[in-house]
Amino acid sequence: MFAPAYLDHNATTPVAPEVLEAMLPYLREQYGNPSSRHEYGRAARRAVDEAREQVAAAVGAHPTEVVFTSGGSEANNLFLKGATLVGKPGALAVSAIEHPCVIKPAEQLARAGWAVTKIAVDPLGRLCPNAYASALAAHPLLVSVMLANNETGVVQDVAALAAQARAAGAWFHTDAVQALGKMPVDFRALGVAAMTVSSHKIYGPKGAAALVLDKRVDLQPLIAGGGHERGLRSGTENVAAIVGFGHACTLAVAGLARRSEHMRTLRQALETGLVGLGATRFGAEGLDDAARLPNTSYFAFSGIDGETLVGKLDREGFACASGAACSSANPEPSHVLAAMGVDAGLARGAVRVSVGEGNTLADVERFLQTLKQTVERLKSLSTLAA
Amino acid sequence: MFAPAYLDHNATTPVAPEVLEAMLPYLREQYGNPSSRHEYGRAARRAVDEAREQVAAAVGAHPTEVVFTSGGSEANNLFLKGATLVGKPGALAVSAIEHPCVIKPAEQLARAGWAVTKIAVDPLGRLCPNAYASALAAHPLLVSVMLANNETGVVQDVAALAAQARAAGAWFHTDAVQALGKMPVDFRALGVAAMTVSSHKIYGPKGAAALVLDKRVDLQPLIAGGGHERGLRSGTENVAAIVGFGHACTLAVAGLARRSEHMRTLRQALETGLVGLGATRFGAEGLDDAARLPNTSYFAFSGIDGETLVGKLDREGFACASGAACSSANPEPSHVLAAMGVDAGLARGAVRVSVGEGNTLADVERFLQTLKQTVERLKSLSTLAA
Repeated sequence: MFAPAYLDHNATTPVAPEVLEAMLPYLREQYGNPSSRHEYGRAARRAVDEAREQVAAAVGAHPTEVVFTSGGSEANNLFLKGATLVGKPGALAVSAIEHPCVIKPAEQLARAGWAVTKIAVDPLGRLCPNAYASALAAHPLLVSVMLANNETGVVQDVAALAAQARAAGAWFHTDAVQALGKMPVDFRALGVAAMTVSSHKIYGPKGAAALVLDKRVDLQPLIAGGGHERGLRSGTENVAAIVGFGHACTLAVAGLARRSEHMRTLRQALETGLVGLGATRFGAEGLDDAARLPNTSYFAFSGIDGETLVGKLDREGFACASGAACSSANPEPSHVLAAMGVDAGLARGAVRVSVGEGNTLADVERFLQTLKQTVERLKSLSTLAA
Repeated sequence: MFAPAYLDHNATTPVAPEVLEAMLPYLREQYGNPSSRHEYGRAARRAVDEAREQVAAAVGAHPTEVVFTSGGSEANNLFLKGATLVGKPGALAVSAIEHPCVIKPAEQLARAGWAVTKIAVDPLGRLCPNAYASALAAHPLLVSVMLANNETGVVQDVAALAAQARAAGAWFHTDAVQALGKMPVDFRALGVAAMTVSSHKIYGPKGAAALVLDKRVDLQPLIAGGGHERGLRSGTENVAAIVGFGHACTLAVAGLARRSEHMRTLRQALETGLVGLGATRFGAEGLDDAARLPNTSYFAFSGIDGETLVGKLDREGFACASGAACSSANPEPSHVLAAMGVDAGLARGAVRVSVGEGNTLADVERFLQTLKQTVERLKSLSTLAA
């Protein structure tokens, strides 16, 4: 079978073989419902409990602070809607570059009467201190700012932002879905009230994620019912996926130094090549700036459409993304680049390469060669057409 | 390894080996995100599309009417909350014997200003026509009545109820989670506006379910974000679980006649034995009444606690349930039996046996022997204590 080089780890990751091994018993003989009071049920409950400890240990939280959900989108919606369900509409603030699964619930809340501020970012994709201060001055009930952006990989100083939010009396939530496994993520050290992490971005299976939650936050469930997850998320636990998520968390932390070093090396080679080819990089200061995830490159070639380029690269055996893959059903130019003030024409050229565990320097070199040829061909075509 | 006889198929089912086989490629090399526009993504998208066709075909719906969710609880919450989010509070009605994942969201809506009617049932667990008529007279926006009850297995005449609701201008939803795979379930023939079906009750994996939805119902998403599932349920699709769900649906329909006949034979042997032992059966008229699922027996022995009995049976190698396993974190007596007018003392004795594909007549005979001895021992203990 032809296997293209996978350079889209911010969209999803392969499941690590040892993660799948850990899951398989729960897709075979250990099929119990964790709520059942017999041996099948107890075995499933022990597995969920162990996974909860693994997730908590990986992010510096207590197991009782981990609320399992079916994915990051659900966890983000649970925080935003669950925390606003308890009282009358007030104010809330989210950054302008959040994932749609934070932006859209915020917009639903705006239609329900909440005053929603979208906090502006600077051209490098970092939160504007003045915009943030004025958002806090409106006394929001809650604030949501992602730890690392899915498109640019740009990292926010969440510990400082959370401290400011606490001082202003707001519950601070961070979407750490892209950060986990690529940089240290510690719930306590960040000082946030809530944090979202997800399995399928860290070599775990799709179908499991967690909202890590300070118990002082008063939250109503989005999915009410049998009272699972301390009443905050009902529904039979997806045992196998949760077990896989737990193992993936352990691996993510154990392999963090090695993996980030590996990804940083590949990214540096990639971006050195990109700069040589005349690409514009988004959110990047240097080749090794600490304020970006080590695996993400986001760039464009002036006059070349990103969708077209990604399509050509796909046919040449390289899987990468244009815009945010998670929501690429939507062909509008990236709201993240728009918030950074990137010209709409250039933004339509955006291509994201996100490397991972399984990539090699040879992948990157082959990619750069193919990219060079493809860009040259597209440029000559557009010259002919002009 | 010691494998107790599993008699709790209404709580969850084992994953059929052919279902797991179908899933495995999506937990291994086909790990793409269906939203990605490269070969990995397209392969995942094709798999989700095929599963959508399988689910639709199994329940007599169109693929575009299938909204995938993470589970039945989410699908039920999505319908109730999603349909009520679009307007001002009005009236809604649910049966008194619904699963907690319908009852609890209805209670949340009551706190938000909705006038909620819980429709009464008769001593056999069937909806009271008068109570239903008066619930409809309040002009509810929506009505939710389950097709088959998870505790008693009692089946409602949903086609007739839905027709009455349509005539009254209400959107009728049915939770068909327990019915699918045990009796014919046809979205169009039932004439409902919405229907919930779930994977892990039909020998599919946990983590996938569907809200089958008439497109005329105006629904807001519970999980908003990237716009997946026609904007009704955002979040990266759990591809492997959805693939498994699709295959499980196909198997459920293909094997329905054989499987229901098998379960009916076992249940008849079981209940003949239970009657001989002096058990009270709940929701049962005869030994082979058509208005119950073919696999479910719900019974009690006067003076014997259900939890205790289930615990003893578990130690003897039989896995069955007391009350509803999905929510047995909650030790209160069954709200279903309370609605049927069962005395609270007898209700505390409730034990549910739900047979399935893998059980044999020998399992049932061994179970009856063990039950007889266990009940006699518990009765003599309580006589000694008296």
